[in-house]
Amino acid sequence: MTLESVLTRIDESLPEAMERLMTLLRIPSISTDPAYKAECESAADWLVTELNSLGFKAEKRRVPGHPMVVARHEGPGPHLLFYGHYDVQPVDPLTLWDRPPFEPAIEEGPNGPVIRGRGSSDDKGQLMTFLEACRAYKDVTGTLPGNLTIFFEGEEESGSPSLIPFLEANRDELACDLALICDTSMVSPGVPSIAGQLRGMLKEEFTLHGPRIDLHSGHYGGPALNPLREISKLIASFHDEAGRVAVEGFYEGVAEVPAELKRQWEACGFDEAAYLGHAGMTVAHGEAGYSALEQQWARPTLEINGLWGGYQGAGSKTVIPAEAHCKITCRLVGAMEPGDVRRKLRAHVEARLPTDARITWDSDLDGAPAAVMDTSRPEFEAARQALSEEWNREAVIVGMGGSIPIAYYFKSILGMDAMLIGYANDDDAIHSPNEKYDVKSFHKGIRSWARILDRIAK
Amino acid sequence: MTLESVLTRIDESLPEAMERLMTLLRIPSISTDPAYKAECESAADWLVTELNSLGFKAEKRRVPGHPMVVARHEGPGPHLLFYGHYDVQPVDPLTLWDRPPFEPAIEEGPNGPVIRGRGSSDDKGQLMTFLEACRAYKDVTGTLPGNLTIFFEGEEESGSPSLIPFLEANRDELACDLALICDTSMVSPGVPSIAGQLRGMLKEEFTLHGPRIDLHSGHYGGPALNPLREISKLIASFHDEAGRVAVEGFYEGVAEVPAELKRQWEACGFDEAAYLGHAGMTVAHGEAGYSALEQQWARPTLEINGLWGGYQGAGSKTVIPAEAHCKITCRLVGAMEPGDVRRKLRAHVEARLPTDARITWDSDLDGAPAAVMDTSRPEFEAARQALSEEWNREAVIVGMGGSIPIAYYFKSILGMDAMLIGYANDDDAIHSPNEKYDVKSFHKGIRSWARILDRIAK
Repeated sequence: MTLESVLTRIDESLPEAMERLMTLLRIPSISTDPAYKAECESAADWLVTELNSLGFKAEKRRVPGHPMVVARHEGPGPHLLFYGHYDVQPVDPLTLWDRPPFEPAIEEGPNGPVIRGRGSSDDKGQLMTFLEACRAYKDVTGTLPGNLTIFFEGEEESGSPSLIPFLEANRDELACDLALICDTSMVSPGVPSIAGQLRGMLKEEFTLHGPRIDLHSGHYGGPALNPLREISKLIASFHDEAGRVAVEGFYEGVAEVPAELKRQWEACGFDEAAYLGHAGMTVAHGEAGYSALEQQWARPTLEINGLWGGYQGAGSKTVIPAEAHCKITCRLVGAMEPGDVRRKLRAHVEARLPTDARITWDSDLDGAPAAVMDTSRPEFEAARQALSEEWNREAVIVGMGGSIPIAYYFKSILGMDAMLIGYANDDDAIHSPNEKYDVKSFHKGIRSWARILDRIAK
Repeated sequence: MTLESVLTRIDESLPEAMERLMTLLRIPSISTDPAYKAECESAADWLVTELNSLGFKAEKRRVPGHPMVVARHEGPGPHLLFYGHYDVQPVDPLTLWDRPPFEPAIEEGPNGPVIRGRGSSDDKGQLMTFLEACRAYKDVTGTLPGNLTIFFEGEEESGSPSLIPFLEANRDELACDLALICDTSMVSPGVPSIAGQLRGMLKEEFTLHGPRIDLHSGHYGGPALNPLREISKLIASFHDEAGRVAVEGFYEGVAEVPAELKRQWEACGFDEAAYLGHAGMTVAHGEAGYSALEQQWARPTLEINGLWGGYQGAGSKTVIPAEAHCKITCRLVGAMEPGDVRRKLRAHVEARLPTDARITWDSDLDGAPAAVMDTSRPEFEAARQALSEEWNREAVIVGMGGSIPIAYYFKSILGMDAMLIGYANDDDAIHSPNEKYDVKSFHKGIRSWARILDRIAK
């Protein structure tokens, strides 16, 4: 009977829950840009206040980067750790936003109302689903559910530089029975999804140096090495005609998807045409011979995320620039090891450098291997049943194209399994202008956690 | 005897002449950036005042862009028109400047004193050599030399959009017997040079559009078309392995340099190792089978001047951007026609577009064919003798890698030949940070014009 009361309480208090989310969304906690350091601090403070008011013992923990937030409620049952991140992606290009990214609002979308604003889906809206489920339990029963630790970080969008040392230093406190992570999306609108595997990530950035100084293309055009042309040739060399990464040894440790899993994926409700169409595409542009779903969930990638050099202003400038720059991320699967892929990628580039060119690599960028979950744990079946009830649709265990290194570190450092459940949709435009989170995701997300906690928290 | 007095006067008044140049250099007349409109106006005003004080009848002429400056002195002899431009290139990247670009100063360089600052060599320092020669004549004889029109524009570094209509509307006033242009460099330090041919130019800019919006590389990495990868492939396709432009039909209208002219060029004192070394290069990177001099003077190019897309800020962003951008200039030689080359370039790009990508072209960018001078005119021989006397070294008739479309328009619109003589050096870093003009170039440049005017102005 408690669950029914909790669900009713969630329905009745939805407007206040949305208002609390709006307050958090108004804080521009962009972690990758040092200019927003104070705002990241504010977001952490807001969460600490919120958690304490809910009955947790919450505090901000100092680390070299943006602070961690840790909160504890001792209770009966297995010790569960809930993870989320309060930092958000940068917002450029700002001109493509229809409203200021940190002035969130409810707007009417083609599929119902949405909460529009940076971080609404990634990850503030998602992390608040869990807190609001806790709040409803507290309101109905007078206490928080089960035996809980809450752990929020503020550097997820900037490579989590403080995470590993913090986990290592706080092993006893954070090594719980199971981690719950709410930072993923549903395979298709309305299809509740639990992540069975996540891709890993390797980040790289390099500068190609050519002429000693910027040159005049009249005086030097012809004889001069042009770094923009050379970096383009390097980037063009990263893939073959079939869309396969052409870096030698790149696919070591990559296995084909087992036939049985592939069959499950094909039946999971993923709408390839809608997925491509949302992005304005008519075909899948990845490796030939693989479906869009496999390209996204089970195949490694090498993507250029930023490329620049020379004159970008209005008009024309007849310059041959001294340098060109490139940001890269690789998504990793299976047993691919970030350090190994990094060595291969760098060797590929260095081997192709023309005379008079040299490369400098950014040495501060990290990586994490792919994560494969232990879906045989009973909590996965309990969550599957809870989600199926809430969404009136069989929940599915899916792959994920994104990288949530925390799942890997929870396992490797704390020995803790993780269960990733999220309510985002593919059209949420996370990391893009006009990010949104469906009100339905928020509402049913809160209800889903209430049902899951009802099954596994006690 | 007048010439000797004029040369002495030039030597004695050099400090004041440098002070006047410094004043002009302090005006940040960047024509390509609309933010500097008022400063371009100021530079024009300063020149009008200067010319009037010299005894010219000078005025600013309104055009849709930055104003023209026209000044007239009626006198005996052939009607000569002197051309220069008062606008300068942008200064980014500002961090690479050792001093503020518009706070010029005399500095000691490895080869003697230099005037450091944006525009010192291109073209403010050069145009002032002519005005200072006129001033010395005026000081010594009480009147300006010969029959002169001065014509300065303020849009040379931004494609001269107002030039053609202005020449067409003022044909009678501007169609003189010969144009003198001071906007070129010496083939080697101390070797006086007259331009026999100039490369033309075609400007292009395009945007490659891929996904409808910026995408998350976790959700879409693999299936998504990445515009940064695609634009790199396009740029890589512009040249073949031998450094030759691979756009079909690009070389139509290009002739090999006649053996006799090639022999003259080889003997003109061009120091290939020094030229390459100045730019930090050990080999010429242009078309295989051509010397650096031929690659610069007699071969067409396709250069990327700007390339950008995606995230350029600090840290990492896992974005697949919706767009990528590219600025291009082609240097043209022989009979290459800009409109024809533009069609071929665009066809090359459009033919290589993958599914789901499209291109938009900037339609505001112009072009001009190459210019070949009539070096058989007697003024060329007179100038050659005058320059040889001043520099104590046989003057040479050379090619030029740069594009000075004005020479082409003077001929095609006004029917007027042009003689291009300049005193810049290849290490002047024009269009680059730390631009400079040798004090020797400035001083002997003034003396050179005095000697040339002595021979041809009366």
